[in-house]
Order: sequence, then C-alpha cells, then structure tokens
Amino acid sequence: MIASHHNRVVIVGTGSVGSAVAGAIVEQGLCNELVLINHNPNKAKGLAMDLADGSEFLGRFITIRSGDWDDCASADVVVITAGPKPKPGETRMQELDAAIDIVDPILKHIKDSGFDGILIMVSNPVDVLSWFAWRRTGLPRAQVFGSGAALDTSRMKAIIGATTHLDPRLVSGYVIGEHGDSQFVPWSTVSFIGKSFAQYLEDNRDRYPGVTLAGIEEQTRRRGLDIKGLRGGTSYGIAATVAGLIRTILWNERSVVSVSTLISGEYEYEERDVFLSLPVALDGSGVGDFVDLHLSDEELAKFRASAAVVREHCVLIGGRLEA
Amino acid sequence: MIASHHNRVVIVGTGSVGSAVAGAIVEQGLCNELVLINHNPNKAKGLAMDLADGSEFLGRFITIRSGDWDDCASADVVVITAGPKPKPGETRMQELDAAIDIVDPILKHIKDSGFDGILIMVSNPVDVLSWFAWRRTGLPRAQVFGSGAALDTSRMKAIIGATTHLDPRLVSGYVIGEHGDSQFVPWSTVSFIGKSFAQYLEDNRDRYPGVTLAGIEEQTRRRGLDIKGLRGGTSYGIAATVAGLIRTILWNERSVVSVSTLISGEYEYEERDVFLSLPVALDGSGVGDFVDLHLSDEELAKFRASAAVVREHCVLIGGRLEA
Amino acid sequence: MIASHHNRVVIVGTGSVGSAVAGAIVEQGLCNELVLINHNPNKAKGLAMDLADGSEFLGRFITIRSGDWDDCASADVVVITAGPKPKPGETRMQELDAAIDIVDPILKHIKDSGFDGILIMVSNPVDVLSWFAWRRTGLPRAQVFGSGAALDTSRMKAIIGATTHLDPRLVSGYVIGEHGDSQFVPWSTVSFIGKSFAQYLEDNRDRYPGVTLAGIEEQTRRRGLDIKGLRGGTSYGIAATVAGLIRTILWNERSVVSVSTLISGEYEYEERDVFLSLPVALDGSGVGDFVDLHLSDEELAKFRASAAVVREHCVLIGGRLEA
Amino acid sequence: MIASHHNRVVIVGTGSVGSAVAGAIVEQGLCNELVLINHNPNKAKGLAMDLADGSEFLGRFITIRSGDWDDCASADVVVITAGPKPKPGETRMQELDAAIDIVDPILKHIKDSGFDGILIMVSNPVDVLSWFAWRRTGLPRAQVFGSGAALDTSRMKAIIGATTHLDPRLVSGYVIGEHGDSQFVPWSTVSFIGKSFAQYLEDNRDRYPGVTLAGIEEQTRRRGLDIKGLRGGTSYGIAATVAGLIRTILWNERSVVSVSTLISGEYEYEERDVFLSLPVALDGSGVGDFVDLHLSDEELAKFRASAAVVREHCVLIGGRLEA
Repeated sequence: MIASHHNRVVIVGTGSVGSAVAGAIVEQGLCNELVLINHNPNKAKGLAMDLADGSEFLGRFITIRSGDWDDCASADVVVITAGPKPKPGETRMQELDAAIDIVDPILKHIKDSGFDGILIMVSNPVDVLSWFAWRRTGLPRAQVFGSGAALDTSRMKAIIGATTHLDPRLVSGYVIGEHGDSQFVPWSTVSFIGKSFAQYLEDNRDRYPGVTLAGIEEQTRRRGLDIKGLRGGTSYGIAATVAGLIRTILWNERSVVSVSTLISGEYEYEERDVFLSLPVALDGSGVGDFVDLHLSDEELAKFRASAAVVREHCVLIGGRLEA
Repeated sequence: MIASHHNRVVIVGTGSVGSAVAGAIVEQGLCNELVLINHNPNKAKGLAMDLADGSEFLGRFITIRSGDWDDCASADVVVITAGPKPKPGETRMQELDAAIDIVDPILKHIKDSGFDGILIMVSNPVDVLSWFAWRRTGLPRAQVFGSGAALDTSRMKAIIGATTHLDPRLVSGYVIGEHGDSQFVPWSTVSFIGKSFAQYLEDNRDRYPGVTLAGIEEQTRRRGLDIKGLRGGTSYGIAATVAGLIRTILWNERSVVSVSTLISGEYEYEERDVFLSLPVALDGSGVGDFVDLHLSDEELAKFRASAAVVREHCVLIGGRLEA
Repeated sequence: MIASHHNRVVIVGTGSVGSAVAGAIVEQGLCNELVLINHNPNKAKGLAMDLADGSEFLGRFITIRSGDWDDCASADVVVITAGPKPKPGETRMQELDAAIDIVDPILKHIKDSGFDGILIMVSNPVDVLSWFAWRRTGLPRAQVFGSGAALDTSRMKAIIGATTHLDPRLVSGYVIGEHGDSQFVPWSTVSFIGKSFAQYLEDNRDRYPGVTLAGIEEQTRRRGLDIKGLRGGTSYGIAATVAGLIRTILWNERSVVSVSTLISGEYEYEERDVFLSLPVALDGSGVGDFVDLHLSDEELAKFRASAAVVREHCVLIGGRLEA
Repeated sequence: MIASHHNRVVIVGTGSVGSAVAGAIVEQGLCNELVLINHNPNKAKGLAMDLADGSEFLGRFITIRSGDWDDCASADVVVITAGPKPKPGETRMQELDAAIDIVDPILKHIKDSGFDGILIMVSNPVDVLSWFAWRRTGLPRAQVFGSGAALDTSRMKAIIGATTHLDPRLVSGYVIGEHGDSQFVPWSTVSFIGKSFAQYLEDNRDRYPGVTLAGIEEQTRRRGLDIKGLRGGTSYGIAATVAGLIRTILWNERSVVSVSTLISGEYEYEERDVFLSLPVALDGSGVGDFVDLHLSDEELAKFRASAAVVREHCVLIGGRLEA
C-alpha cells in the first residue's frame, strides 16, 4: 500500500530527555515523520526548527514538526517524556502526585485522539506511570510499556565494557525489576564472550582486582544518580535506549528487551495489577511473551520485593484513575 | 497504528542486479521485510539465506525471505529486475519480444495479487517496459515508474566528481530522456559549488585540459557499456540508485529525481502514451509533478527525438498488451 | 599501518552545544575515540558516561572518555565549543573580552600539547575567535577554521525545504560572510531542482504567495535568534553541521563548504588578516582552495562590508594576542 | 595529525566475493579509500566505476579506485579474496596447489610493498591459506588472520534466529575449529535471551518439535554448500562478515570474534604451527588474547581433531614456502 503515512513517531515533552530522544531519532532516521508536542508550543516549535537545521548533513530526510494531540491518531509510536522538575524535600507521595498532575492530562488527550499504536512511557517513576498509562488509556497490554530497566541493562553493559576494556555489545543479559533502587541483576542471565560473566570474572581474577558482581550491580543501580551528580542530568543514554526500542518496533525486529510491562503472576508474585521490567519479546505489535528466566530463590525474593515497591506506589495513586 | 506489517519490499528477479539491489536494501536497513521472487525459487531461497547470514553485523535486523506473488498484495514497493540474457545478433524487436516474454507474466501475477503500492521497473529497455507495466497493471501513473535516467544522473555526478577530484554529491542536475543512446544532459540544469557546471569548467579551463561538457555527456551515455566491457556487467550503481529511490519513497522524502514516467505533452512532445525520464517529485505516494526545465530549442529537439525513439518501441510491442 | 590510534576527536566544552556535537558524533560513529574536556572535569566525565550508556544500541562502538590537554597531541580534530554565558547589557567589547578570557587559555593548552591536526572553532563570535585561534596557535591556515556560515547555509536549505515542501538536500548554494548580522546569500550561487532558486520562485509565483528571496535571506539570518527565543538556545543544528564537517575531514570527502577561513584579498577586500565564511574545499588536510564565485557589484559590497565588521572586532581584541 | 591518508582498505580479487565485500564496505562507509586489485586490471577498474556510480545515494563519500601492489604499502587492511574456480573431480591436494598458485604471488607482492597493516585472508581453504600467509609475509601473528569461523558463527546465529523467529543478534556464542567439515559448536558458549541456548530449547520443547542442537550444528556446517546448491555461490554473508571485522579493526572496537589465527598450545593441541578459529580479541592492532573457553572433554577432542585436519594440509603445502 502507499507508504506516505507510515512511521510517524510523536514525542510528548521536549525537555532535555525528550530533545535527546528526538535528536537520536533524527540522526538514525528512524521514522519518516517526527512530531513534537510540548505544553509550551514554542519549545516544540523551536526544537523542530533546530533539528531541521541539520537536514543537509543526514542520510535520511525526515519531516520534523511541532504538532498537537490530533497527530497521535495515526501515530505508530508515542513517547511520553514529560515530567515535573523534582523539588528538594518532597515526599514520595508528593512526587508521585506532581508526576500524575502532568502525565494524566496527556494520557487523556492521547486516548481521546483515538491513538491505537504503541505508547512508550519514559517519565519517572516509569513503572508506576506505565501502569497508570495502561489503565488510563485502556490500550491492550501489548501496546503500553515503560523504558524501565532497558536503560539499566544498557548501563550494566557499558560498565562491564569499561571494566574489561572490551566492546559492551559483547554482554548479553538483563537487569530486571523496578527502574529504581530495588532493581537487580540476575547474574545467571548475563553472559560474556562465551561464558557466564561470573565465570569470566573468576577466570580473570588477577586482571580485575576489586571487581565484583555486587560492585557492578551497585554501579549500575547508582549510575543515573552518579551522572546527575556529575553533569546535572541524564539524557543521551536514555535517548539511545528509547531510539533502540523504537527501531525494534518499527523494523519489527522481534528482539527481547527488559522493559516495564504488565506482569501476571510471573515468578510467583501474585498481584497482577503492576508494571515491572522483565525480558519480553518486542516487535511491531508491541510487547509479547515473557522469557522464562531460571531465577534462584534469592532472586525470586528480590523480584517480589521489587514488585511490591511498585505495587505500593500504584495503590497510592490508584485513586487518581477515578478523576 | 500497529507497525508490524509496514514496509515490505518485494524484488522480482535475483540475478546480479536483483541480488545487488537486495544487498543494498539490507545493508541500509530500508524496510522491515524483504521478499525475493525468482522463477527458480531455489535461487531466491539461496539469496535470502546468503543475505540473512550477515544479520549479526548489521545495525537493523530485517526479515529476508523468498516468497511468491501473494506477497505483493500488501507490499509497499515491488521492484522488477528480471530480464532475458541478451543474445548476440538479436534485432531490437527480438530483444523486446524476449523481454516482454519474461516481464508480462510477472506483471499479470502482480496485478492479480491486488498490489496497490509502487512498482519500480529496472529491467531493460526500462522506458518501454515501464510503459508496458503501467498499461498492463492499470495502476495510476503515480505508482509505476522506471529507474531510467536516475542511474545516468548518478553516473554523470560520479564522472564530474572523478574529473574534478571533488565530492560527486556537490553536483546537482539531471540527465533526461531515454535510458539509452538518445539520452542527454540539459547542461543548464547542472550546477556545481555555486555556479553552473559549464561556468565552473570555463573558470578552471587550465586545470582540466581536454575536459568538455560534450565529453562528460558522452562518457555518461557510454558508462554502462564501458563497465560491461570491463567487468562483464553492471550491478552496484543501479543497486544504489534503486535503493536510493526506495528510501525516497519509504521515508517520504519528497525529492526530485529523473525517473521514467508517463509524459503528457511536456516540452511539446504531443504523443501522450510514452514513458521517459524527466525530473519529477517523488514521495511516499509515488511520482508527482514535473519540474518545468527551461530547455533551449536544441534541447527540446533532443527531448522530442528521444521520446520518439521510445514511442516507436512502445508501438512495436503494444500488440502484446492484448494477450 | 596499524589503525589503533586513528581518528581521535577532542571536544572542548561540554555545554549544550558541545554535548550535542558529541551526541551527533557518537550516533554517527564518526571516529573511534572521542575525548571530552571541560574546565569542570566532572561535567566531561558525566557526559562521557551518559553517552557510553547508549553503546548497546549503536552500530559502531566508539570509546568515549573525559580527557585533558595531552589528548590533543595526537588528535585528528579538536572542536572548541566553550564560551561564556552571555550577560544582558554587555557591550560588544565586553562580550569579546569574556569570550577571549575563556578561549585563550584553551588555545594555549592546545598549542602546548603539540597538536597538529585540524582545529574547528564553534564558539561565538566564531569569525573573530577563529582568527584569534589561528594567530594564537600558529597553525597553518589549512588547519584552523570556524563552523561559520556552514550552519547558516544549512539553515537556508532547511527554510527552502520547509517553504517548498521538498527535500532540503535538493538545494545547493551558500551563505557567506560573517556568522552574524552582516551575512548574506549570494543568490546566484543557489540552485534547486535544475534551475536557479530565483528562477524556481518566479516559475511558481502562484504557489508561494509572499515568498521572496529577501524574506528567506532574512529568515536565515534571524533563524538562530528565533530558535533561541522559542526554546532558549540552539544545539542540534550546529551539532549536525559540525559532525558533517568532521565527516568531510575524516572521510577525506573533498567537499566545498562555507566555513570561516583566512581570506587573502578575495573579492577585492584588501585586508588580509581576517576570517570570514566563503566556499572552500575541505578534505582530510583541512581547508583548501576558494571557489571563485561570480559576485555582482552589490554582493561584492556586502562582502566587503561584512569583512570590515569582523576585521574591526579582530582589531579590538588583537592586543590580547600579546598576552 | 592530518587525516588525509587514513583508513585505506585494499581488496585483492574482485570476483563475486571480493565484489560483495567491496559493496558492503562502500554501503557502510567503512574507510575513506578503497583500492581494488585484480590480476585482470579491467575487472578492478570496472568494479570501481560501478561502485562509484552509487555515490550520490550514500551517506559517506569514499574514494574507490583500482590500484596495484604499491597501494598496499600504507594500507590499514588488505583483504585477499582471490582464488581458483573449483574444478570437479580435483583431489584435495590439487585444490590446495591451485589455491597456492594464485595466493602465493599475491602474498609476495604484498610483502614486497612493505605492507605493515592487518591482512585478512578470505580465500579458501581459509585456515591453511591464513597460515601460509603468516609464514610467507613474516608479519606478526596479530596482523594476519582468516575470516574462518566468523562466518559460521554468523550463520549459526541466523539459523537460530530463523528457527525461533527472533532477532539473530540476540544469540551470543561461537563456532570454532576449521572453516570446514570438522568445525563444531561448543554449545556451552552459546547463550540466548538470558540463558544457555540448550536451556532455551529445553524450556520450549513444545514450540520447536524436531529442533535439536545437533541439527542446528549440522545446518550451520552445511549452510555454505546448501546456499551454493541453491544459488550457485555465496557472497553476501561472507561480505557482511568481512565488513564487520574491518569495522572492528578500524573503529578499534575491541570485540571478541572467532577467526582463524595462530594457535600455540591452546586446548592441549601441541602442534604450534597451525591456524584455526577460536574466539580472540580483535582491535585496531589486530588479533589479541584468546578467550579461555571451558570445553568439555568431548569438545577438546573435536578441537584437536579439527586442528589435526588443518595441520595435515599445512604440511602438504609447506614445501611451497621454500619457493
């Protein structure tokens, strides 16, 4: 069929993360139309102009413009990056409320547009907001997910790469659970150049004094805060991750990624109404089957604890769904 | 909407040209599903396997498979590269007949599939076969074109680049007319680093002794035969050109390219039932408006002569449409 | 020879422009080692970590790290993006002084490192700072240039593309002069789909009511300020431009670009000690020959006026070279 | 330092494999100068012209030309793809002799040029020819390797991807040993979406009836012959593989790949004068350390048997080194 309306991506929120996601999409030429939405339309318009100014130098010309909610109607992918500026001293509940204040009206607009594509939540706290988005929009489970631990997974690979002085793309494996303090690395899932990474580390004990699995896991968990402490925020890592997820969707690559998705009794966590990152198939239809990891008892306990953290936050803001 | 069925390209014919086109599409990651069809299904299957063997090393994973006519039904683009091996001593009529013998059943299959995308004819003689394909399939003018002088245009740029030791992408302009001996370069359309190429050559007379517009035009016209003489055939130039045209369509780039399209009284050539290359807009909907070149009287005469050559061949094989 | 030390790019300054340049280089995989330097090393370190976090999703793995002046010694390209935050109410002289306060020590460090690659100045006012850098480092004219009107040229193309709804890469031509208010478009250099853009506009008068060459020129000149007004700053357009210039250098593409370079009597401007943008050849050895544009008397006058503006600023800060 | 002479790749042999390797390099823009050498210079010249004809459509312009042995002197990488057409009924010894007849003079020319880059042998039988090349040129072990089982590894991934309908890039692991019948998959090295592939298969027994590790290993081993049977030869898989290896070198990616390299007592095979594929670090300096796989006794036996096969062939042609 005629291709002219294919492959529209809409980004909601054009702060530092939304801008960097837009930049990555344009550099990689991932869609043929990129629409930017911001509550201050001038910011979206200015970003569209700034991005378009590089067209001469890129391999694929894509239309970049500011837009509005109607543009979601026939979008393939909508990415939500909008969120409040964090205020020092806020309680967790105040933070959640502030996030919902911003995200809820966006979700209603997207729903009202008739959007029937794939919604990627990037705003934090990403797990609870992804769950909220799924509930608010009424979209099928396959069509709503959060970037979640896909970023943490990529960070773990970057850290292992930097530690070993080898290409981080040699690492396979996943970080799972909450995109937050209760996340963890099930090390049995992590392999590296032909063996488990644990085995690799043991085989090369002399070469990496002081390097431990627990240490890498802790660096991974803290990475976001560390970068924020150093440069005031993070944007490029999440941008590359989201662009990678969009590529997986639009190219129908049928990959397996650790993103925040609706769980349903996995790993003996009985509450079914919660979003969390686990490795799932991802393709042009969205989120598919879970991979059955062989978690140890200790890992199962960590997983359930992580799910409980998110579940608790869902309960806290669940009332907002009635508004 | 859900992206999973987007961006299918079908290539018919997997000889050296079809294979190279497939290779370029895969290297550039231009679609998410590439389907190969050959009258000998083994050849298509083997090419699909061979191409898939490189997946590990490419940035975008695309599904590559052999297929059949049903796959055309929901294809965005179908490219026809099939053709007879030329036999020495054949008359032009015999050549045309042999080409139609191969291409006509393909067109009928594509039509019967319900295909409603964009058909790119690459097989030679490309102008007359594009016209035949348009007539046979009954598709709108926008949805059928031949690669035509887009290759000759790219060759002119490569030749100017090699002559001046500068990046060939600095050249803008077009070769027009038949993809064959009667093609020509309307030099008024050709500019280079801020002036007409003719002016550039005059300004740098000392640097390029013996280089003339006529000489470059003649090299362009002969380039295909020269390469065939040197290496036995051409494949990479046409492959890059076709991949570029497909990118323009699937990314909806709204470019202007010199491809073989239905003309309708342009430049005072009154016969309306003929395909020829002129600069036209190309986007996701296919071929759009012509550009109004300001041709000199001499160029107008060349254009009409070139159109007459193709028209004559159309008349010769027109009877085949009744079969 | 062994490739392991090839293709190092150093970026000095990791504010919004430096970060975006780094992002574009990483997305495009333009070098094999990217080194970031900031007066606050934490910011460089944080950016390196943030960029590295996307490695999993990119086609080419490049080493990204914070570094110091020694890293310039064997760099192929050093890009300077550092600059002061503009303060409202400053005089032009105060602005210049503040810029030199930041850039001069950087240049001394680079010089002292033994750097012998290509230095690209991006900080503003780019023309006078490029001149200052050339004088301070003592590098040959070929090895120091400013991004200058390459960005304005790309903007002109983006504006023409948006105006005509066609691919901006179809435009060829140049903006020349100061990267500032005295810049201008010599329209005779600008061609579009087979004719001069002026002719195109005349041929399509009905389709573009109110569109004029002067209007496009004015939009181009104001584009930076417009974007700043809308989103608070510009970063992606300049980032893509600088990445494009680096690609031209590292791939030795032998392109022709309008960058800020030492002029020497061109177009009858007799002062020889000034930097300004004109189309010049650019390749792996840096800046080469000028293109001889055929400027009208009016354009010549504009060019000389633009050169005089920059020359005046050079005189103002020339004394700083003695420090 | 000035970049203008960086990143030259020379391809020797422009048959179907050499041409496809050249095509992949150009499409991916991997170097800034590609030099083609063939015993029939016309074929190299024609291929260079054909490849250059696509320049307009590619993101990075690279210089492509036919060349001669002097061009090897400052090349970063030389790839040898030349080889005899196999003749039916030849003994293994006759085949080896025919291959050496072609490759030996090439190696002498390369050595005489003063080449000091990285030599990639692609011609078959690749293991014995890589060994011969190492001995003939006297280059350090790091600078000579054969594409070897890197292609078989990529094929295993493609087969697992096609079997599971998932992205083949999710597979990590290696095929090792001879690029020939005695190669094998040490399945303990192969992981897939968070577990060993063996575990994955066991977990999903119902979904893949009839699929076995042994079956996939056998398909991998036979893949080259199968494709040859279907389409008459293989070219795209090997081209993507070699392009991937070149990218790893020129970007200094520090990956780990299974290529044919000099072994020195690894896995208790005591003969030290033989080339075979094992996972090794690869970067801009060439081949580095081996990875210590934890092979089972059965795998060790297979490895030693495979090494013995190649060693035997080395002995057969060792006398040619004295010529």
